[in-house]
Amino acid sequence: MRGTVLHGPRDIRFEERDDPKILQPTDAIIAMTATCICGSDLWPYRGVQPIAEPMPIGHEYCGIVEETGSAVTSVKPGQFVIGSFFASDNTCPICRAGYQSSCVHREGVGGAQSPRLRLPLADGTLVPTRDAPPAELIPSLLALSDVMGTGWFAADAANVKPGHTVVVGDGAVGLLGVLSAKVRGAERIIAMSRHESRQQLAREFGATDIVTERGDDGVARIKELTGGLGADSVLECVGTQESMMQAIKSTRPGGYVGYVGVPHGVELNGQELFFDHVHLHGGPAPVRRYLPDLIDLVLNGKINPGKVFDLTLPLERVAEGYRAMDERRAIKTLLQP
Amino acid sequence: MRGTVLHGPRDIRFEERDDPKILQPTDAIIAMTATCICGSDLWPYRGVQPIAEPMPIGHEYCGIVEETGSAVTSVKPGQFVIGSFFASDNTCPICRAGYQSSCVHREGVGGAQSPRLRLPLADGTLVPTRDAPPAELIPSLLALSDVMGTGWFAADAANVKPGHTVVVGDGAVGLLGVLSAKVRGAERIIAMSRHESRQQLAREFGATDIVTERGDDGVARIKELTGGLGADSVLECVGTQESMMQAIKSTRPGGYVGYVGVPHGVELNGQELFFDHVHLHGGPAPVRRYLPDLIDLVLNGKINPGKVFDLTLPLERVAEGYRAMDERRAIKTLLQP
Repeated sequence: MRGTVLHGPRDIRFEERDDPKILQPTDAIIAMTATCICGSDLWPYRGVQPIAEPMPIGHEYCGIVEETGSAVTSVKPGQFVIGSFFASDNTCPICRAGYQSSCVHREGVGGAQSPRLRLPLADGTLVPTRDAPPAELIPSLLALSDVMGTGWFAADAANVKPGHTVVVGDGAVGLLGVLSAKVRGAERIIAMSRHESRQQLAREFGATDIVTERGDDGVARIKELTGGLGADSVLECVGTQESMMQAIKSTRPGGYVGYVGVPHGVELNGQELFFDHVHLHGGPAPVRRYLPDLIDLVLNGKINPGKVFDLTLPLERVAEGYRAMDERRAIKTLLQP
Repeated sequence: MRGTVLHGPRDIRFEERDDPKILQPTDAIIAMTATCICGSDLWPYRGVQPIAEPMPIGHEYCGIVEETGSAVTSVKPGQFVIGSFFASDNTCPICRAGYQSSCVHREGVGGAQSPRLRLPLADGTLVPTRDAPPAELIPSLLALSDVMGTGWFAADAANVKPGHTVVVGDGAVGLLGVLSAKVRGAERIIAMSRHESRQQLAREFGATDIVTERGDDGVARIKELTGGLGADSVLECVGTQESMMQAIKSTRPGGYVGYVGVPHGVELNGQELFFDHVHLHGGPAPVRRYLPDLIDLVLNGKINPGKVFDLTLPLERVAEGYRAMDERRAIKTLLQP
């Protein structure tokens, strides 16, 4: 098959790869219905996170099960399934506590920007839908695999509750953090954004206020909007020092920061954090925990996270998709095999 | 009056000071029944936290109200009261959310190792008991002012719940963290301690296991005791880089670190913290939130945090108390005016 391989900084190729095979009795192979490009794919794409050798890339997926290993019992060929970017057994104590992305047997998923994909630990990882979903719901179901699942975790980690004032950014995850905060009953949702198209989508998802300032000015504006106190819940979905500090400083004492942007070069000063008095929680989103509920919300028409895809390309034009996201011309690119 | 003043590293003097006066209509003056020396007093005592000029020291107190300002309505002369090391109005939104130690009008309390003390914001800060408590309960009531209130906050921030496995150190706050974890229903309480007298008190307060290893070896031992996973809840009550990292690394993914040791030189790496996947919460303990419940627990004989005082001295011998704690010969020193 032909699939997507990153060769070096800004060198994405759609080229011949080996077909995936069942390697373990707990594996499954799926035929990709749709995949997409993640903000975190841009770290190695930009060379910020160097790679040692050509790397099949992509970790968001939904598709039809083609083949299963002999030990797989909960999914079968022909079923439509969604899974997370970490395979998990879903039975260990960490999984049972809802932290499947730190499963004691976890395996990272890679190479999903391809027409076929091997998934380890299929029983624990893949969630099937009862019927094959209609085509118009595919983008929203695909979004659950990471970007929406991660936005939801950010809102959960930030303890978003009815009546809360919430602050979120305008990246793809941030925008779905806005949607998550809305669904969880937040009263006021402040989107930090200076891009008109992103502001518009933020408002569609439930943002009540837009703040265009950044850094210290952004923090000052949030304080101004919250009676000098700061927000109850702040979602950090980027992973830079500036975004992390902005998140912490925008939170009121006793408030919550949920952080899901993979930190790059972030250092936190213990004494400052102590007197900021916030709750801090985050990490790789345990998407598997949320999949059943989020699938229901999509199938029942309650949420439409697929709106975050503002560019759709055939899979073989994947390199164009990376360029559009790198240059911030697209929020998120969906790829069709 | 004569009171305790820190003049420089290891230079504690009991000397003439001005008598406290009502400065604001919201102030009260108390006559000290008992005060004590805090682990955090040792930072400036040792010169780790330099002081610019001679500083009246001490922030733990209980006593009899002598005088109140014209605006004070909830306490009156003759009442026995306890308060926290931060004065708070107890009415602002931050206080109402239970974070009185970050009250928008908070004021630090200082100079409590003296026979009389001015307290600002008396209505919001001081909690009176119905009757004058019996002498044998004074040490336990005094402990609520900081060391027990802080241990309790550590356990609360670390989400200690029935059935949990909890890890705590053996400082005065840590030992009362053990007691707090026990009262909150923890199933297994692992005390990190290599001092026999502290191990014994930890066991008295409810520790089920003792670990003598430290640093990476300590973490390895905790992992061994918890099926390779780490603890549900870890209380960090010291504030050094080593103790903070030991706490984080001893916690299972999805678990909770409650930290109450004022950090000195602590830096956290964002990416490590991300993949450690823990909840992190702490800061100056909002003791005022817990005082009413903790006072009831002491008056009803349910807890005896006063056991943490293993040295009692007349106030004028305060310098001996500092020396004993500095050399770790005493866990905590109670001072009687």
